[in-house]
Amino acid sequence: MKKMMMVYLVLIIAFGVYVFMYRMDDKRSSAWPDGGLHGSIGENYVMVTFQSGMEYWKNIVKGFEDGGDALGVSVEYHGATQYDVQEQITVLEQVIAKKPAGIALSAIDSDALTATINKAVDAGIPVVLFDSDAPDSKAYSFLATNNYDAGVAAADKMAQIVGRQGEVGIITQSGQQNHSDRTSGFKETIASRYPAMSVVEVKEGKGDAMIAKAAAADMLGKHPDLKGIFVTEASGGTGAADAVIAANRTGKVKIIGFDTNKETLDRISDGTISATIAQGTWNMGYWSLQYLFHLHHGLTVPAPTLGNDVSPLPPRVDTGITIVTRENVKDYYAK
Amino acid sequence: MKKMMMVYLVLIIAFGVYVFMYRMDDKRSSAWPDGGLHGSIGENYVMVTFQSGMEYWKNIVKGFEDGGDALGVSVEYHGATQYDVQEQITVLEQVIAKKPAGIALSAIDSDALTATINKAVDAGIPVVLFDSDAPDSKAYSFLATNNYDAGVAAADKMAQIVGRQGEVGIITQSGQQNHSDRTSGFKETIASRYPAMSVVEVKEGKGDAMIAKAAAADMLGKHPDLKGIFVTEASGGTGAADAVIAANRTGKVKIIGFDTNKETLDRISDGTISATIAQGTWNMGYWSLQYLFHLHHGLTVPAPTLGNDVSPLPPRVDTGITIVTRENVKDYYAK
Repeated sequence: MKKMMMVYLVLIIAFGVYVFMYRMDDKRSSAWPDGGLHGSIGENYVMVTFQSGMEYWKNIVKGFEDGGDALGVSVEYHGATQYDVQEQITVLEQVIAKKPAGIALSAIDSDALTATINKAVDAGIPVVLFDSDAPDSKAYSFLATNNYDAGVAAADKMAQIVGRQGEVGIITQSGQQNHSDRTSGFKETIASRYPAMSVVEVKEGKGDAMIAKAAAADMLGKHPDLKGIFVTEASGGTGAADAVIAANRTGKVKIIGFDTNKETLDRISDGTISATIAQGTWNMGYWSLQYLFHLHHGLTVPAPTLGNDVSPLPPRVDTGITIVTRENVKDYYAK
Repeated sequence: MKKMMMVYLVLIIAFGVYVFMYRMDDKRSSAWPDGGLHGSIGENYVMVTFQSGMEYWKNIVKGFEDGGDALGVSVEYHGATQYDVQEQITVLEQVIAKKPAGIALSAIDSDALTATINKAVDAGIPVVLFDSDAPDSKAYSFLATNNYDAGVAAADKMAQIVGRQGEVGIITQSGQQNHSDRTSGFKETIASRYPAMSVVEVKEGKGDAMIAKAAAADMLGKHPDLKGIFVTEASGGTGAADAVIAANRTGKVKIIGFDTNKETLDRISDGTISATIAQGTWNMGYWSLQYLFHLHHGLTVPAPTLGNDVSPLPPRVDTGITIVTRENVKDYYAK
C-alpha cells in the first residue's frame, strides 16, 4: 500500500514538472532569441487604405490577415470610404489614438499624409507603407510593385504573343509616376530587346474606359498593321478591347492590360484581352505585417551593432508581378 | 485496492493524453496557420559566399544566424576560400548533396552559377540570392543594396558637407553594374538637386588604392577648387584620402567612400574621410533566412489563390544603406 502511494506521488510530481516545463517553453518561444516568432492576441496591427470597397485591396488584406495568423496576433482593417484625403487623415488619427502595435498604410496623397504618419512614428507606433508611398515621411519601409519592371514584363509578353515583330502602341494615364514607369519599362524593353518591333504611339487614356476606347480607335485607324496595345491600367484595358472589337480586328490586335478586376478577367476568359499584369498584392499585406511585428518586438537590426540612423528594415520591397492569361485566369477570380 | 488502481490508471491515461496533446500542439505550431512561426533544430539552412575570409560577409552571416535563432532552426556557413568561380560551384554542389532546407547564395558570377542554382531549385531546395545576383536563374528572390539610391544618398551627404556648392569628382570601377549605378545616382542627383554644384570628372580607380590615389592626385591638380570626391568602393577611398593628404588639402577636399572595412573606419575616425556608405548587410542575411523558411514551409502566396507562375516571394528587396560619419563610426567597428 505504501509502495503504491509512492508510485502515485512520483507520478503526480512528474505531471506537475511536465506542466511547468510546458508553460516555460511556451513563454520562452514568444521572445527573442529562442523558439520561434509569435506575438500575443492582444497585439493589434491595423491596415489603413482609401476607397475601402475596392476589389484591389482584398488580396492585400488577405495577406495581412495570413501574416497575423502566422504570428498569432490580431489584425484590423480600416479604410476611408472615398477617394478623400481628409477622410483618410481622420481615419488614421482615430487609429493612432488607439495605440495599435503597428500601422500599414497606403497613402492616398504622399504630402498630405506625411505629418500624420510622422505623428504615429514619433508616438512609437511603427508604420510601413504599401502600394502608395509617402517618401518624405518617417515610415520604415515601402512595399509595392516595381512598375518599371512590370512594364518590362508586359513588353516581353507582348513580344511573345505577336511573334517578336510589328508595331505596338501604349495607352496610359499621364501625371502619375506608376503609369509613366510602366510606360518607360515597356518602351525601353521593346527598343532594346526586339529590333523587329516598334512602339508607334503613346496615347492618353485618363483611366477611363470611354476615353481609352476613343484613343485606341484613333490608333487603330492610323496604324492598319498594329499588332498590339499595352494599357497601363484596368479601365482603359476594357476600353481598348471594345475598340478592337468595334474595328473587327479581334485576334489581330492583342491587348495587354493591368490589374485583375472582374471585367479584365472576363475579357481574358473570352479572349478579347490576351494578358494582364497581376500585382503581388498578397505579398504587400503579408510582409507589411511581418515588418510591423519585427519593429514592435525590436527584432530588426540589433541596436548595439549599428548606429542611430540605420534603416532597421529593408526600405523598399518589390512585391512582384504575375502575368495572367487564359491558362491561369480562373485562379484570379475572387473566391 | 481496486479503487487505488483505478486512480492510478486514470492518472496514467491523463498523462498520456497530455503528452499526446503537447506533441500535437508542437506540430501545429510549426505549420501554417496557428501559434507562431518556428521550425525544428533539424532544419538546416546554408549560406554560401565567395572569398569566405572577407570582413564584408561578417554582418550578413550574423543576420542569417539571428534569423535562425528567431525561428528555432539551424544555420551553416560555407564560402569558397578564393575569388574563384569553379570553387564556388564545387562548394554549392556539396551543399546541394546534403539536401538542406534552403540555400542563401551570393553568386560570384551570375552566368556560371545559374545551372547549379537551377539544379538546387529543381531538386526542391529553395534558393535566394543576396548581394550578387544571377538574374536568369530560378532563385526566388534577390536581396541587396539599391546602388543607384546609394549614389543618391552619397550626393545628398556630399552637398551637405560642402555647403551645397562647388566642384566635385567621382572615382569608380568601370565594368561593374553596382559601381556604374552608384556613379549615376550620384551624378544625376547633383545635376538635378544642386544647381550650384557640378561633377567635373569621373575617373577610373580599378578598385585599387594606388591607382585611385594617382587618379585623385590628377583630379586635384586639374581642379584647384575641388570640394569633394565620391569613391564608389572601399580601397579607392583610402587611396583618394592619401592623395588629398599628399596635396596638403585635407579638410578642403572632402572624401565620401563606400563600405565599412577597418581602413575606411580608421580614416573616418581621424577625419581624412568624411563619410562612408554602409550597406544593410544584416538585413541581407536575416531576410534571406526568413524567405528560405517561408519557402521550405510553404508559407508564401497560398497556391489555391494564385496561378503557377506567380512569384511566391517579393523578387527584389532593397536592404538599405546608412551613412557613417565620425559621429556613429564607433558602432561600425567589428565587435
